[in-house]
Amino acid sequence: MDIISENRAFGGTQGVYKHNSHSCHCEMTFGLFLPEEAKVGPVPVIWYLSGLTCTHENAMVKAGAQQWAAEQGVALIFPDTSPRGEDVANDDAYDLGQGAGFYVNATQKPWAPHFNMWDYITEDLPSLLQEEFPLDMSRQSIMGHSMGGHGALTMAMALPGRFRSVSAFAPICNPTASDWGRKQLSAYLGDEESTWAAHDATLLMRDKGFDGPVLVDTGTNDQFLDLLRPEALAEAATARRQEATLRLQKGYDHSYFFVSTFMEEHIAFHAEALYAD
Amino acid sequence: MDIISENRAFGGTQGVYKHNSHSCHCEMTFGLFLPEEAKVGPVPVIWYLSGLTCTHENAMVKAGAQQWAAEQGVALIFPDTSPRGEDVANDDAYDLGQGAGFYVNATQKPWAPHFNMWDYITEDLPSLLQEEFPLDMSRQSIMGHSMGGHGALTMAMALPGRFRSVSAFAPICNPTASDWGRKQLSAYLGDEESTWAAHDATLLMRDKGFDGPVLVDTGTNDQFLDLLRPEALAEAATARRQEATLRLQKGYDHSYFFVSTFMEEHIAFHAEALYAD
Repeated sequence: MDIISENRAFGGTQGVYKHNSHSCHCEMTFGLFLPEEAKVGPVPVIWYLSGLTCTHENAMVKAGAQQWAAEQGVALIFPDTSPRGEDVANDDAYDLGQGAGFYVNATQKPWAPHFNMWDYITEDLPSLLQEEFPLDMSRQSIMGHSMGGHGALTMAMALPGRFRSVSAFAPICNPTASDWGRKQLSAYLGDEESTWAAHDATLLMRDKGFDGPVLVDTGTNDQFLDLLRPEALAEAATARRQEATLRLQKGYDHSYFFVSTFMEEHIAFHAEALYAD
Repeated sequence: MDIISENRAFGGTQGVYKHNSHSCHCEMTFGLFLPEEAKVGPVPVIWYLSGLTCTHENAMVKAGAQQWAAEQGVALIFPDTSPRGEDVANDDAYDLGQGAGFYVNATQKPWAPHFNMWDYITEDLPSLLQEEFPLDMSRQSIMGHSMGGHGALTMAMALPGRFRSVSAFAPICNPTASDWGRKQLSAYLGDEESTWAAHDATLLMRDKGFDGPVLVDTGTNDQFLDLLRPEALAEAATARRQEATLRLQKGYDHSYFFVSTFMEEHIAFHAEALYAD
């Protein structure tokens, strides 16, 4: 693992690191904020998964999350959204290929060798983090924005016991019924739609739900509301009697101005779960 | 004036606008955050002047200032750092020409027709803002980062009664004695150094000071510390018995991680002055 940069921030350190990923078979870059408390012992962890077109950097510089993580004494992990590099397949569209990994393990050509973001986030990166940094991996929560909200919700439900809480900003809630989903799941996983269900938060909510609290914020002026389908997740969560807070925020859109506005509440929500018992 | 974008943020609106500048003889872009209180009446104003290479956008997305402005009920103005466009002179160096206006009125070729950032910030943009937005221009404060800290300090001292308080993050304190200054002042104002003194915060502090509180933060690990010369400003302010808080922040560098860490305190500092009497 190589250090790309380390900047002091809010009493802690915002680092950027790169390493060779076993899952993605390429070099991957991630950001990690460690609060001051990490100097004296392991701290709880919140994952932040980013959306389409983002790298590790967007949320790290625009979401305003570090200040609240510092206040709560928790670490923040900002992974990239896909494998990258000249040897890695790509597409001219902004919503397929590099920057658009969709948090799945691709089985189809040309994506299969590198596009394994599910394994990268759930296995590869956690084991590196545990080795290299003072993190308490028994206390993890996860959140994300848009495509990253999709990733956070699906991973939280698919891996019971891993995450204590899950939250999302404007998540893609029902990708098997959306143009933000059908295109990518078809490309990465193939046309057999039964393989898609494991990557649809609404279907997972119907099928199993999440053993912990859920918080989802979506703006009423989100320009992608039709693609996100928050109504599908709301129906599924309510039918299941899932412990959840689902909010429509008046006038907000899909931008980081929306994300940063509600970041304090999301971090506090996760901290409450991370410090319980 | 044209609206480029308006995003809801922290209960208010983060807008980006463009207009034809009389001072710079080109189209100029700026950001303006209006808190929720602006819906019912004029609100106080804090100017944020950015540093070398920045546009109106950098601080707007990375400094985390809007949340504190919303809490205090004040507006934030994010001007660009220079004139721009194909017809505007430029230089290959990052620290001269477009993105490096240095907050002066250029008198030398090829800069003179467009590079009039002093007039732009102190006359042109204020009159547009007063016409178009619910701002209480009798309550203004100013801050900036690096080259923008230089701009904020020099304008605050040169225009008594205009700003109630001034603050800076890692300002260029003594440009007439620094490679961040001598090069630009020579290019924009010519080789007669007597014309430079009006654009040196340390010389202005020695000569006249500021009629209000001053707050300056600089990181002990700032990679440009030798160019900033905070010691010169500290000596001048202390000798004058200027009302001032000058802080060296351990371990912090020149980045927006540093700026955002102390933004809450800077906005609170200005709000106290803006709401006094």
